[in-house]
Parts: sequence; structure tokens; C-alpha cells
Amino acid sequence: MADGTPGQAEDVQAMRHSLAHIMASAVQRLWPEVKFGVGPAVENGFYYDIDLGGTKLSEDDFAKIEAEMRKVIEADEPFERFEKPIDEAIAWARESGQPYKEELLNDLKRAGTTAAKELDAAELGTIAPASGDKAAESKVENVSFYRSGDFTDLCRGPHVASTGKVRAFKLLRVSGAYWRGDEKKAQLQRLYGVAFATEDELKKHLELLEEARRRDHRRLGQDLDLFVFSDLVGSGLPLFTPRGTVLRDELLGFSEELQRAGGFQKVSIPHITKQVLYERSGHWDKFGEELFLVKSQETSDQFVLKPMNCPHHIQIYASRPRSYRDLPIRYMESTVQYRDEKKGELNGLARVRAITIDDAHVFCRLDQIEEEFTVIMNMVKDMYSVLDMKFHARLSFRDDSDKYLGDAEVWEKAQQTLEAVAKKLELDYYVETGEAAFYGPKIDVMVTDALGRQWQCATEQLDFVQPQRFGLAYVDSDDEEQTPVMIHKALLGSFERFLAVYIEHTAGRFPVWLAPEQIRLLTVNQEPATVNFAAGIAAQARELGLRLTIDDSNESVGKKIRTAELMKVPYTVVIGEKEIAGSELVPRIRKDMAVQDGGGSGTGAGIAGVVVDQFLKTVAHEAKSRVHKTSLHG
Amino acid sequence: MADGTPGQAEDVQAMRHSLAHIMASAVQRLWPEVKFGVGPAVENGFYYDIDLGGTKLSEDDFAKIEAEMRKVIEADEPFERFEKPIDEAIAWARESGQPYKEELLNDLKRAGTTAAKELDAAELGTIAPASGDKAAESKVENVSFYRSGDFTDLCRGPHVASTGKVRAFKLLRVSGAYWRGDEKKAQLQRLYGVAFATEDELKKHLELLEEARRRDHRRLGQDLDLFVFSDLVGSGLPLFTPRGTVLRDELLGFSEELQRAGGFQKVSIPHITKQVLYERSGHWDKFGEELFLVKSQETSDQFVLKPMNCPHHIQIYASRPRSYRDLPIRYMESTVQYRDEKKGELNGLARVRAITIDDAHVFCRLDQIEEEFTVIMNMVKDMYSVLDMKFHARLSFRDDSDKYLGDAEVWEKAQQTLEAVAKKLELDYYVETGEAAFYGPKIDVMVTDALGRQWQCATEQLDFVQPQRFGLAYVDSDDEEQTPVMIHKALLGSFERFLAVYIEHTAGRFPVWLAPEQIRLLTVNQEPATVNFAAGIAAQARELGLRLTIDDSNESVGKKIRTAELMKVPYTVVIGEKEIAGSELVPRIRKDMAVQDGGGSGTGAGIAGVVVDQFLKTVAHEAKSRVHKTSLHG
Repeated sequence: MADGTPGQAEDVQAMRHSLAHIMASAVQRLWPEVKFGVGPAVENGFYYDIDLGGTKLSEDDFAKIEAEMRKVIEADEPFERFEKPIDEAIAWARESGQPYKEELLNDLKRAGTTAAKELDAAELGTIAPASGDKAAESKVENVSFYRSGDFTDLCRGPHVASTGKVRAFKLLRVSGAYWRGDEKKAQLQRLYGVAFATEDELKKHLELLEEARRRDHRRLGQDLDLFVFSDLVGSGLPLFTPRGTVLRDELLGFSEELQRAGGFQKVSIPHITKQVLYERSGHWDKFGEELFLVKSQETSDQFVLKPMNCPHHIQIYASRPRSYRDLPIRYMESTVQYRDEKKGELNGLARVRAITIDDAHVFCRLDQIEEEFTVIMNMVKDMYSVLDMKFHARLSFRDDSDKYLGDAEVWEKAQQTLEAVAKKLELDYYVETGEAAFYGPKIDVMVTDALGRQWQCATEQLDFVQPQRFGLAYVDSDDEEQTPVMIHKALLGSFERFLAVYIEHTAGRFPVWLAPEQIRLLTVNQEPATVNFAAGIAAQARELGLRLTIDDSNESVGKKIRTAELMKVPYTVVIGEKEIAGSELVPRIRKDMAVQDGGGSGTGAGIAGVVVDQFLKTVAHEAKSRVHKTSLHG
Repeated sequence: MADGTPGQAEDVQAMRHSLAHIMASAVQRLWPEVKFGVGPAVENGFYYDIDLGGTKLSEDDFAKIEAEMRKVIEADEPFERFEKPIDEAIAWARESGQPYKEELLNDLKRAGTTAAKELDAAELGTIAPASGDKAAESKVENVSFYRSGDFTDLCRGPHVASTGKVRAFKLLRVSGAYWRGDEKKAQLQRLYGVAFATEDELKKHLELLEEARRRDHRRLGQDLDLFVFSDLVGSGLPLFTPRGTVLRDELLGFSEELQRAGGFQKVSIPHITKQVLYERSGHWDKFGEELFLVKSQETSDQFVLKPMNCPHHIQIYASRPRSYRDLPIRYMESTVQYRDEKKGELNGLARVRAITIDDAHVFCRLDQIEEEFTVIMNMVKDMYSVLDMKFHARLSFRDDSDKYLGDAEVWEKAQQTLEAVAKKLELDYYVETGEAAFYGPKIDVMVTDALGRQWQCATEQLDFVQPQRFGLAYVDSDDEEQTPVMIHKALLGSFERFLAVYIEHTAGRFPVWLAPEQIRLLTVNQEPATVNFAAGIAAQARELGLRLTIDDSNESVGKKIRTAELMKVPYTVVIGEKEIAGSELVPRIRKDMAVQDGGGSGTGAGIAGVVVDQFLKTVAHEAKSRVHKTSLHG
């Protein structure tokens, strides 16, 4: 595109990068004392880290900055590239009062070309050596600059031809950012905007952001009373309320049901172990820093909180002699494991320190791999079909490097088997070479949510290494000792992370089988006749295993309906004289569950009357069969 | 009893004490170099801790020692009491080459009368000051001795009149015992015997011991493949196999079912917390040493493994404002808590470091205590009735001391309420004054097992203190803020300890609803027709939720039957040509389950034929209704 119109992905990124310059230029006009950090293009937009001394920016400043940016754009100044020797560049930074740029240039000079390339892109931002590309270890001689109008910046480029060529953009937020990501260094302000090739794309993106905000699982977790955090307990350690525990039990119970049908047997292990277990398994060397260390005051044993369950399950396998006739042995357990995540990385349920995995381990013979992967992948299909979420299967295979343990021929055959299973089950799959774990190939399940975002959830991994490390054995039909292979599998993966995804996927509108509250009765008054009638229905519901509540508070029916809607209860039923007299209910159905979803703006259509018994049995059946739509009709 | 015949409890104890002297006398005759520690009477018998230098005693020496003891008894030497001034006693010990006695006497001299009384009886053994009883803090002047024949010992008495007056006894075991229980001190040998007033009582006791040995849960846990320990995981940290996990899930599931029917809601909490939570609750001061400390490598927060769940549950209560209409709020959760028990105190499942409690907490108003205790005690009755175990309720009330927190009048009223509930529910109860916790009165449930031993299992405790410590509140009908009271409750208590008790109570003969394996099919051969017929039955059983296995190994039917008997499978069914042709089974029923238990020595009576479908449905019904006896008849 000779005219510089952004269209392709790289052109859009150039445009975003140009917008970072334009924003910096505008900020400099408004606050001439500004000192600049780095300002790269990022996914969907751009940012610039700036130091305004004591001046704190807020969203109130965005209109002013955007107006100034439009002036720069209207001026349609060309982006001009030029070079300076590194020492002149350093002098330029010093003279322009840009200490952060000066620091970067000095580092660049010290580090040389190759090292500079290896530095983190976001840290180095847009600066880069303009020369020295040929000689890997050569010194940096020149660096490149871009100038547009009265604004000049150290920059690697590329840019659009002129400031007038940028398209749809919007400033979104300002937040604190430590210089070079180091909390011991100065705190700058990160001014962040989004930018797209068309206004339409920008609008769609902003709508998506707004929808994601509305669906934010942290917000819904609070509004729907699903989980809480406590300062006294600690960050990253969620406490599940009764409502959240329903989701937990139902989701993990469903996983367990699928596994039981697949021949898995439940086991139960403690949450701590002597450190030596992970030294033996090799996890200590790899993940030692992520482990919570446990100190006994009574013994000198060094314990850790388990960050995974395989070595424990291996101990159960190893507790008896096993024969080829016993295999496959399949252990499952939904259990909490602990990882010592950095505080700054914790995020609601999406990243926690107490992680519940619907974990399982198969110990089997090499000739049983195909059958086992088939059984497990069928569970995955069943699970995500019921959850109404699409997924791709990523087959992570080895490359030719020597970082993989185990026999290459066995690997090759196993990879062929995994791909054969993916074909046989007609999975939407792709192969990613070089993505295998060092101990074996795997299938990662990438789930797509309602906002089109992808999440890795289920995983099934072959393991040729741990059985050997622990000396596991079985006696084959010739009475010879053999080493089994292991398969690690999870259907939901981290339950907490899955729940975060699923809350946002459904916007908290859980299907009947998962809804913490399936039916809410709203009494029109507090008369004994009304309250008793409701209590009678509640008793019937309990018999059927339904979760039914009664709102017999002293509020108006209208208010009660709105409250129930906010809690996203699937069925709400007003209980008044007519219902008591006729013993027929007129349930209001949460909109997303109605079969004929007219797309109207109503939040719950009423249907024709149905006798109490029939209504409750229908809902119980819907819960049992885990459907998303109701079979009740208007 | 002027003739010194042992009859009453104290006489039996005197006889046991005399036997300790007689044993010591015999040992001294056999090994004149022996040095004596302490030798008290204990429950059911007596022991003496002795130092034989390098000589290691074993059970092989018992006959020789018992023969020597009989000589002492036949000589019928009188037990003669005399006193010595403390310094002379010390000199006697030194001269007789008894350094342990010398150490005890020196301590006694230093400590004085009152302090000596407070020393642990087992440590001080049988020595005691003979004077100084009048003046509480006075110095010890004289100590008493007993002489019988050529054996003299420091001793408080009393004894039988002469060595000939002792009755039925038997040496049982020899084990290591650190001097004064201190592992840094010398290791002595503890020679232990049992003694009773009659040969008949002794015989019964030995039979009971043999039965307890046969039922030892550690042995049955191994034989029935219920749980394992691993050196790599650590002591006191059981791993439950698939079979053990069935017991776990069924028992805890039953507890949960009872609680759910009682209005309890499940919650879910992490296993770690910041230490500050237990500082706030007051547990840190009381139980700080029993806590496992958890160190994060990523943050400076000090964590601990939770030794109890109440402060966590309190955080959930505290996460929202609560109204009087919301109460009672009842949270339940079967979760693992960790206590840093001393290694030497660990014992199979009976004493572990990972303790699963079917814990629950009620937050309620004072006027709701009676209803809540009634609901909970009814659950206890239901639970132990199904488990076929009798229990007493111990009502632990306060005394007049000032160690109790909270308003005395509220205590008084609460205690009256607890006793009223016990009366109303016709519990077999007794009141123990002074046994209340400092935070409130409680009901402890003391369960009796098949060998007549008592165990504290369930407990329900009122708590006036923690709600205040955490500032919990609800708004009453006058819009005033009030503090709720809490009830802590557990039905099984520690699941691990309960399982240890229950395995020994049932000798591993679990009722159908708990049996890890409910039905085992034994094929007469490995023909496809036979194996397929068995597989068809297995599929039907799975549909009904039954746990059925097939033994189609290449063994004789007789061997298969014996193997199934060893695993205490409730129903075993031989599958041969007759069964395939007639589709009728002849199940062998585990003896204890038969309604007409003729008391014969058979280990599983066959019954008349029953069609497959009917058999499986009957067993499924027995499991569902949790009965102990079968309804299948011969």
C-alpha cells in the first residue's frame, strides 16, 4: 500500500506505533517538562510511559490530550527517519532533558547489538541500533530517530508516512508503571490507547471491552456472592461461599462422573509432603522457587505444599506389586495444590495460589496409549459439549533438539498415535512442533469463550520419565519386569481459572444444573397461607434435589423480580392467591434459556401455567440432563 | 479383706504393683547387675524399666523370668515397709549401684514435698516421701521402702501382705523406653505384664488383646488395601487407595447428607492462611507450637497450614452484612487440617498429621441454640444408629473458676438448654463439671466399639468468644447491631481416627454401603462365554451404582473363594455353566450379614438361586438404605 493506508497487520502495528509518537507529541505540547520512558505499539493499541513530576493524569485529561493529538494529525507532518552516532544520541538525550532515554542509550552502548536485541522489547521500547546488524557482537555505532513536526524520538520504526495517515483511536486508561518494570525504580504513568484501521473495528473493540467489563468474574463473583477474599487469609486464596461451592461441586462432580464412567478410580492424598519426594521426581530443580516451604516445629523433616499430585499418586501405585493384567490403573482426584505465585500476578480466580485440579494419572503399557487417549479425549468432548464451549486440540510434539528424554522411536510412535486419535475423534486439531514437554508429547485443549478469547483448559500428557525416576514396574506376561508409561490428564484444568473463564463466558447466567439457586419463589405478601404454600413447594423441590429459595421479604413483587434478575436465577415464580387457588404456577424464565429467544429486550418471559409437580419435575430433569434451554413453553 | 486377697479395684492395683516388685526381684536374681528405673502398676498390669547394659531381653526370656517369679511367689515372703532419712536413702542407692534411683531421690530432695507430688506419677514411679504431708512446702525428711525377701525397693506402697498373695499374671512384651521419657537420656528396657484377680479374667483379657491384634487397623489397612504410607511423603500423612477412598467418600458423604437435610450449606476454603488470622482468633497463643509454618519464597507474608476451620468460615460470614432473618447460617465442609504432631505419637490412622474433619459452624442468635443443638444431636443419633455403635453424651459444663470467658448468666442458661436437649432426645448422658472449653459449654459424644473401648468422636461446642474476637454482627429486628453465637460441630470428628476405630469395630467386615467391593464374581474358567456373562452382570451392576469386580484369573474356584473371603467381600458369586444356562445366581453371603446367623464356623453361607436382576437390585437397595443384614434368604 503505497499511500501508507494501514490494512495489513504490520501496517496496523506501524499506525499504532505512530500514534504513540503523536500522543507523546501532544503531551509534550501540553506539559513541556515531560520526560519520556518507552512507547511501543501493543496488541490492539499503544502506550507511552511518561514522567510528569508531581502532575497526576486522570481520565479527565483524555479529552484535552486527544484534542491536541487531532491537531498533530490534521497538520499531517511526515515521519522523517534519520541517524545519529550513539555518543551524539546520548548527548541529545542529555541536552533535551530526557534522562530515561539517556539511560537506555547508555545501556545500548554498553550492551552491543546482539545483547540489545535480546533485551525485552517492551523495555527497550522503540529504540534500536540502526547499524551493526551484520556483525553479531559488534558495537552499536548509529541509532535511528524519527521526527514528526516538532517532536523527535529515538525510534526503530517503522511508521506510517505522515501523522495524517493514522486512523481510529481512543485513549483508554492511565496507570502506574515502574521504570523498566522494577519496583525499586521511579514510578511513571502509562498512558494507554487503542487503535484500529477503521472506526467500525474500534467500535466493536470498545463494545467487547465493555462487555468484558460487565462480565468481569471478579465483579460477578462479588455481585452473585460466589467467592470472597480476606486480608486475614491472604491474597490468591479464595474462600468459596455456599453459592460458589455449588458451582465447584457440580463442575468437579461432573468431571468425576465422566472419569468414573471412563474407569477412573478416586484416591485421596495429603496436601503436604517431604521435599525429598519432589527432589526425586525432578520437580524441585525445575519449580523449586514456586513451592511453599513447610516447616515442622516438631521434627526436622523439610516439607513442602504439593504443587502437583503425580508423585503422590505414584506412591500409591508403587505400594504393591502390579501385573500387566492390572493395567491400566487410573487414579483420579480433584485436589487443591499450592503454587507460590507472585503477588502482582494474582488476579481474581484467574490466577490464584490455591489451585484445584481435576487431576488424574493413568499407569499403562505402551500398547494401551491409543485406547487411553481415546477414552480421555472423549471425556473432553463430552465435557465441553455440555458446557457449550468449542475447542481446538493442540498436539504438542517434539522437535529435533536433544532436550527431550526417552527413546526417540517411542516418541515418534506415540506422536503418531496421538494424531491418529485426533483424526479418529474428528477433533479440530493442529500440530505444534517443539511444544512437547521434555518428558513426552501432549494434547492441550484450547477453549474459546463467548467473547472469542482462547484459554488452555484440559490437557493430556504422556510421560516417559517419571515412571523411571520412581522405579515403577509391572510384571509382563513373560514374568519380566517392565516400566509402565504415565498419562497426566485434567478435564477442567485449574478449576479456579476455569470458573473465571466460565463466569465471563456465561456472564453469570449459569445453566440450571450449575445455578446456585435454580428457582426462586416470590410471595406477594407475608400471609401464613402464602408463606406456607411456598414452603410446601420448597419441601417438594428439596425431595427432588432442587435448589429453591423463597423471597418472602416485605418488598414489592416488582422489586423482588428485579432482585432475582440481578442474581440471574433461572426460574422465578410469583406466589399469590391465584397460584394458591389453582395450584398452577406461571414461572418467569431467564431469557437466555427460552427456546424461542426472540432477541427482545425482556429479561424473563412468563409462560403458560403449569402444575407445581410438573414444573418441579421438568426443572429437575433439565438439571439432571444438563441442558441449556428450557423445555417449558409459553 | 483382712487376708489381703485382691478383690476391689485398689486391691488389684496393689497386687499389680507387688508383681512389679516380684518381677524386679526375679530379674535381679537372673541378672544381678540390673539397674532399676521405675516400676508402677498400670491399667491391666504393671511394668518395670530396667537397664541390663548390653543384654537385650526378648520374649524368649519370658518363660525364664516367669519361672523365677513363681519361685518368689511360692516363698510367700511378706512385704515389709520401713523408712530411711532421705540422705541415707541416697547413700543406699549409691551403694547398691542404682544410679536411676539415686537421681530420683536427689530430685526429690531438691523439689520438696509439694513439688514432688506434682511430678508425673509414671516418672516418679513408686517412690514418694513418707513424711512432710502436713506442711505443704516442707522439706522431705524420710522416704519409705518395701522389702520382700532379698529384694528391697524405694516405694510408696501399698502392697499385698506377702508375695504369695498375687494372682493371675503374664509377661506380655519388652520394648524400649527412654529414661524419664527423654530421648536424649539412656534407653532402658520396659518389661510389661498383665495381671488380674482371677485366671478367668486374665484369659478374657488375653483373648481381647488377641482380637484387638487381629483387628488392628494398621494391619487390616494393609491387608484390605485401604491406605498406605510412604517414606518419601512422610509419617502421619496417609495416602488413601481407591478402596480406602470409597470408605472416605461414603462416610463423609453420609455425614454431608445428614447435614444437608439439617439445613447446612457447603463452603470451601484453602488449607493455608496468613498467621495473623490465628493471632486474631487466639489459636496462635494456644496452639502455636502445633502449627506447620509455611514460608512463601515470593512474598514476606507468614503463612500457616490451618489446624482448624472456624476462622476461615468466619471470614465468609463476615464478608456481607447479615440480618436476624438470615440466621441461623450453617456452613459445613469436610476438609483436611494439619497438626504438627510429634513423630513418636503418630499411630496408623489413629493419630495423623493430616486430619479430615466433617466440620461445620452455625452462626445463630441466643434464642436459636436449643433448636440448633436439637438438629445436630439428631444427626448424631442418626449417624451412630446407622453405624451400629452406641454412644454416651458427655455434657461438659463450667465450674466456678474464672478461666471461662463470657457472661456467667448466659453460660448458665446455655447449659440448661444443652441438658434440656439431652433429656428431650433421651440421650444416655452425664454432666462433667469443669470440662467446658474456656469459650463455652459442649456436648462430647463418646462412642463404644465392639471390644468395649470408648472413643470421643462427635462434638458440638458453643462459642461465645470467637464471634466477638472477629467483630461478627447481625442487625436485629430493632435495627440494632448484635453479636451472634457460634456452634462448632463434627459428626465423625477426625475421619482418619474414626476410620481406625471403625475398622477395628467391624474387623474390616464393612456393611454393603461402605464395602469398597460389594460383589465379586468368580469365574470357573476363562472361556469367553463365562467371562462375557460376568461382564454383562458387571455392566448391569455399574448402572445401579454397585461396586462389582470379576476374578477371572487362572486359579481354582476354591482359591478364588478364599481370596474373596480374605478381602471380606459381602457377596461372592461363582459363575459357571449352570449360572449361564439358568441366569440364576447362588450368592455366598459374608457370615456377619446373614439374618439367621447360626453361629456356625462357616465363613459365608450359600443361599437359594436368585435371578441376576433381582440379586443386583436387592444389593443396591441394601446399599442405599445402609442396612447391616442382608434380605436374601437361604
